[in-house]
Amino acid sequence: MNTWGNRMKLTVFGASHGAGVGCALDGLRPGFKLDLEAIDAELGRRAPRAEPGSTARRESDRCELLSGLYRGFTDGTPLCAFFRNADARAEDYPHPEIPRPSHADYAAFVKYGGFSDPRGGGMFSGRMTLPIVFAGAVARQFLKEKGVTVGSHVLEIGGVSDVNFDPARVSAAELSAFDPLFPLLDSRAREPMERAIEGARAAGDSLGCAAECAAVGLAPGLGEPFFWSLESAVSSLLFSVPGVKAVEFGAGFAFARMRGSEANDGFYAEDGAVKTHTNFSGGINGGISNGMPLIVRAAFRPVPTIAAVQQSVNLTTLGAESLRLNGRHDACILPRGLIAVEAAVCLALLDGGL
Amino acid sequence: MNTWGNRMKLTVFGASHGAGVGCALDGLRPGFKLDLEAIDAELGRRAPRAEPGSTARRESDRCELLSGLYRGFTDGTPLCAFFRNADARAEDYPHPEIPRPSHADYAAFVKYGGFSDPRGGGMFSGRMTLPIVFAGAVARQFLKEKGVTVGSHVLEIGGVSDVNFDPARVSAAELSAFDPLFPLLDSRAREPMERAIEGARAAGDSLGCAAECAAVGLAPGLGEPFFWSLESAVSSLLFSVPGVKAVEFGAGFAFARMRGSEANDGFYAEDGAVKTHTNFSGGINGGISNGMPLIVRAAFRPVPTIAAVQQSVNLTTLGAESLRLNGRHDACILPRGLIAVEAAVCLALLDGGL
Amino acid sequence: MNTWGNRMKLTVFGASHGAGVGCALDGLRPGFKLDLEAIDAELGRRAPRAEPGSTARRESDRCELLSGLYRGFTDGTPLCAFFRNADARAEDYPHPEIPRPSHADYAAFVKYGGFSDPRGGGMFSGRMTLPIVFAGAVARQFLKEKGVTVGSHVLEIGGVSDVNFDPARVSAAELSAFDPLFPLLDSRAREPMERAIEGARAAGDSLGCAAECAAVGLAPGLGEPFFWSLESAVSSLLFSVPGVKAVEFGAGFAFARMRGSEANDGFYAEDGAVKTHTNFSGGINGGISNGMPLIVRAAFRPVPTIAAVQQSVNLTTLGAESLRLNGRHDACILPRGLIAVEAAVCLALLDGGL
Amino acid sequence: MNTWGNRMKLTVFGASHGAGVGCALDGLRPGFKLDLEAIDAELGRRAPRAEPGSTARRESDRCELLSGLYRGFTDGTPLCAFFRNADARAEDYPHPEIPRPSHADYAAFVKYGGFSDPRGGGMFSGRMTLPIVFAGAVARQFLKEKGVTVGSHVLEIGGVSDVNFDPARVSAAELSAFDPLFPLLDSRAREPMERAIEGARAAGDSLGCAAECAAVGLAPGLGEPFFWSLESAVSSLLFSVPGVKAVEFGAGFAFARMRGSEANDGFYAEDGAVKTHTNFSGGINGGISNGMPLIVRAAFRPVPTIAAVQQSVNLTTLGAESLRLNGRHDACILPRGLIAVEAAVCLALLDGGL
Repeated sequence: MNTWGNRMKLTVFGASHGAGVGCALDGLRPGFKLDLEAIDAELGRRAPRAEPGSTARRESDRCELLSGLYRGFTDGTPLCAFFRNADARAEDYPHPEIPRPSHADYAAFVKYGGFSDPRGGGMFSGRMTLPIVFAGAVARQFLKEKGVTVGSHVLEIGGVSDVNFDPARVSAAELSAFDPLFPLLDSRAREPMERAIEGARAAGDSLGCAAECAAVGLAPGLGEPFFWSLESAVSSLLFSVPGVKAVEFGAGFAFARMRGSEANDGFYAEDGAVKTHTNFSGGINGGISNGMPLIVRAAFRPVPTIAAVQQSVNLTTLGAESLRLNGRHDACILPRGLIAVEAAVCLALLDGGL
Repeated sequence: MNTWGNRMKLTVFGASHGAGVGCALDGLRPGFKLDLEAIDAELGRRAPRAEPGSTARRESDRCELLSGLYRGFTDGTPLCAFFRNADARAEDYPHPEIPRPSHADYAAFVKYGGFSDPRGGGMFSGRMTLPIVFAGAVARQFLKEKGVTVGSHVLEIGGVSDVNFDPARVSAAELSAFDPLFPLLDSRAREPMERAIEGARAAGDSLGCAAECAAVGLAPGLGEPFFWSLESAVSSLLFSVPGVKAVEFGAGFAFARMRGSEANDGFYAEDGAVKTHTNFSGGINGGISNGMPLIVRAAFRPVPTIAAVQQSVNLTTLGAESLRLNGRHDACILPRGLIAVEAAVCLALLDGGL
Repeated sequence: MNTWGNRMKLTVFGASHGAGVGCALDGLRPGFKLDLEAIDAELGRRAPRAEPGSTARRESDRCELLSGLYRGFTDGTPLCAFFRNADARAEDYPHPEIPRPSHADYAAFVKYGGFSDPRGGGMFSGRMTLPIVFAGAVARQFLKEKGVTVGSHVLEIGGVSDVNFDPARVSAAELSAFDPLFPLLDSRAREPMERAIEGARAAGDSLGCAAECAAVGLAPGLGEPFFWSLESAVSSLLFSVPGVKAVEFGAGFAFARMRGSEANDGFYAEDGAVKTHTNFSGGINGGISNGMPLIVRAAFRPVPTIAAVQQSVNLTTLGAESLRLNGRHDACILPRGLIAVEAAVCLALLDGGL
Repeated sequence: MNTWGNRMKLTVFGASHGAGVGCALDGLRPGFKLDLEAIDAELGRRAPRAEPGSTARRESDRCELLSGLYRGFTDGTPLCAFFRNADARAEDYPHPEIPRPSHADYAAFVKYGGFSDPRGGGMFSGRMTLPIVFAGAVARQFLKEKGVTVGSHVLEIGGVSDVNFDPARVSAAELSAFDPLFPLLDSRAREPMERAIEGARAAGDSLGCAAECAAVGLAPGLGEPFFWSLESAVSSLLFSVPGVKAVEFGAGFAFARMRGSEANDGFYAEDGAVKTHTNFSGGINGGISNGMPLIVRAAFRPVPTIAAVQQSVNLTTLGAESLRLNGRHDACILPRGLIAVEAAVCLALLDGGL
């Protein structure tokens, strides 16, 4: 279904080329003054750009608030936002019976019996991250009130890697200093990454990528021990973001090659706070925050819409088909997608008790 | 909270050294004949062994059914199973005020105000996987009825790797042929893996590891497009399993270094079924099964209980402490932990519509 | 919170004098052709009228569909409807610090810390039934497909009573023959009821009332045995409707004065169906439909907005205040409110397994 | 399903003549010292008695705690209680194919395809209130901490009525002074009520009845405005209790015959608190507590197990059958059932924010 959360409930609705996309975020504390400009700024980070690798589609990412605010403060009703679809060219995908490789077309055709809206990917479109980014921007304001800062950077694009966060020492200042449009720890990675994106775009191809996100200033004790562990909550939201196929916390897959004597994070006390010397755990033990920075990485598959001729099947006849797509799409989900990664983390933390 | 699922509801309860651990699994179709011996066999795969790397703790993994069966068939009430704790030595961890590094002790101390049961890790114990394995064994029987087979193998321990599944060709026969105690695709990896475990055990150390799991025979159309994508559901359960810190589907993190033209899975039809030549997607597109094998990998951190002296903090005084642990623990969660990985996949698929 | 249901999820949002009110109805089977004119007709039954006792407020009850339909069929996304508030005069209630007796003003002031929207009752307004009526109209179409008909009549207004349904014999034909604007079993009750409403209106007073609703054509086996018994589901929705303070099924409170030998509904078989001679149970045993007509009655309190001077308290000073209200309100919730009663029943049945 | 609640989750399981019945109550604040003797006392109020009208079945209502307490304090895990079934005579109902009138037998047969446990009513048995009473006793302790007292009395049995609570003035002292075994406001009603029960028992018949419950000391602001209004929450739990067929709050059905000018509860301030002169609203406005006593009444149908020959149908042959039941049952659910009514109110209030 389309509702998520325990302490709050987030419901999303809409489709890429229908009337619009939106969400209702329920359970927010009443009397919180929302900073609408800050939300706009976050939506702006998600918006398509006149930059290498970005989609040419012009969307109205302007948000219409249908409910939830009275005189600028949350009023106890669900905060409902709607984003009207303005610039949809329905003719883009003229053959819904020929599923695009690695898109949801075929799986959706079976699940929905051919009744789901195929235009622009319908409910599977990256446009569905718009309400998530909105809700994440709201969550971020509640987090900020508690001293929590969430930020992310591009970790890898086209074979070019940024360095990793120093997991025990990443700071709010470091996260706040990021270039909002192309955040990197080592800015020298930007030029080769952009060149790789531009090269893929020019070739009608696309690139996979990876992001790294940190949340600092977290109090210990957030999250739940089992089903709603912080890792479970963050990953279930991250895997909702179209294209995400891998998620790891702290040392992640590298743990498979470590020994306990290397991997354990010893404790010490500093200024009345309990800390760990290292932070291989990524700030989470037993599903619960331990007060150290939360560190999560996610990988995105390459955008499946590419210009090359691809093999498909006609779902009506089961005959082989060659497919050549035209469309306006990002050659790489990052850096735009970073804001969706951060939104997932913000929402999971808000639901986890912040 | 401790309840999970949409089409079904799984509730877990208990703690490692309390009366016992258990679960209630609600929403099962009535009139299904449960194979209790098959459940026992799966619990057996989780049981401690007289093998290298396994815990010396003797647990009663025998299951007491409190509810849900009448004359051997599901009867519409929640299936409730309870596992009494028999062999708990409460004196094992005499200093709850000195948190063990990379255990949940400190995070739990803050979250529960010192009231959570610290013995044996309490609700954070690996023993909590016992009800999950039980519920997974039940789910597997419902999956089997629909022709779905779920299996897994050890992918990596102590720097030794098994080969990966051939994602587009892994078969039920291959999964069924696994050695239940130490499943590997390439059995030559067993001896060096066991040697590594034994070496770590002898050194009072532990090893991280990784597992790979496949589900074959899935109909297309299972799962949901967004919050309850198959990836979200599987990962939220996998990240509930103590020690799991990384999850990836299909090509996973390797997608970050791929181009769309390499990564897309072209369609073809065979025997009236739509298939893909490759299966980088791991059987899931847009959060929904596409009929190809579901492929998921998970990494476990090294068991944090090690013999070496470790740095900790006295939570009462905030003074530094040296900690030396004694206890009965696995030196490596795998291969025992494989059954929990499979249980998570089985449960997510049952909830996803099977 | 503002989400309800198990097999489906209904989320409502909005407030009386904000941007509008709306709902998202998730979990509908894809591929169902919605009859939008039938929905309009039901919304019309709820609309204010140029009749005795009806509010003079002119609302746009025209529904804007934001999501959920593609080419006229449900498409698997939540069906989201929005009703813009057009004719709101914010100046109606100039003194939010002086709570109106028997309105939600004071309770809301405490719960929301003064941040809830007080205009027109905000989220407590009868206007919140608009999305419920919409969702109920959708549910009714799914019910109709299964041969279920839901109808209701005014049972009591101003001391004038209609006769009760014959609980074992009420038929779809009888329900369908109701006058949609003022349904009664004995039409002779209409004139004295209307006279009572008109009298109350003229006196600036209001009237309580009661409704009786039946669902016929139900298959046996709908509902759940305990928390989600049909009675629980129906009553929880009915008690969401502003003004409802009493709900009873079958013989209801009269059971308190009956003996088992009178109250039991003996079985017989007819045309291959199991039926009961009497239907004191109101079609529900053990929380589950038994195939006989579902019979439920609900009482509404008098609309609390009246012209008489009333005693109140200034919430800032705690000083006594005299309050005289002006506003545009129904003198009696029925007959308009019948459609909300039917909507609650339709939604509970859809969630109960239809 | 068998899970209920928002701020907490209550899951029930089991059946009358299976291994036992139980519940898991999740979301309790850790560190709360449970008074187990007080719980025992409440279970004692539910236990069968050597009194007129009570069942002769001897049950072990002794509670086994499977989870949730550590050293006497809630420990953050679900509080799981189990009640073993000791004295079940499976031969009591030898003909499951012949449904007992006004029992759940037939509805359950259809819903569960004949697989539900028919013995003793299975999951529909009054024994299912045992975990509810347990959970309610726990909830009551949390309420007590906040100054809330919940009590109830027999309102009507066999044509004999007690007086009603004075809704604006009922006090904790009055509730605490009740005779725990047969609470009445006017103790003169006891003798004729007991005589009526004894008469029905002697005749192999049963009696319907009604209860009235009050909660005093409630802070204003508990509950939710719509789906989870206090009325919705209380009624959904009350209608889960086997036999309850009617629920009303405050003036309830009598509202149908009132005018707004009579029914409105004018405000005044006293000792810094806002109160109402009258309390027709039963302490709830807009679904939220207003600080006045919560008043709710519920009616129970007569226990359907009676000695008279009854008409039924053989579900296999659809032939008519005459049914004569033997069994050990209460002739009247009250006064024993009062404790279940109070439990429902306590649980709804705990979930509503207390």
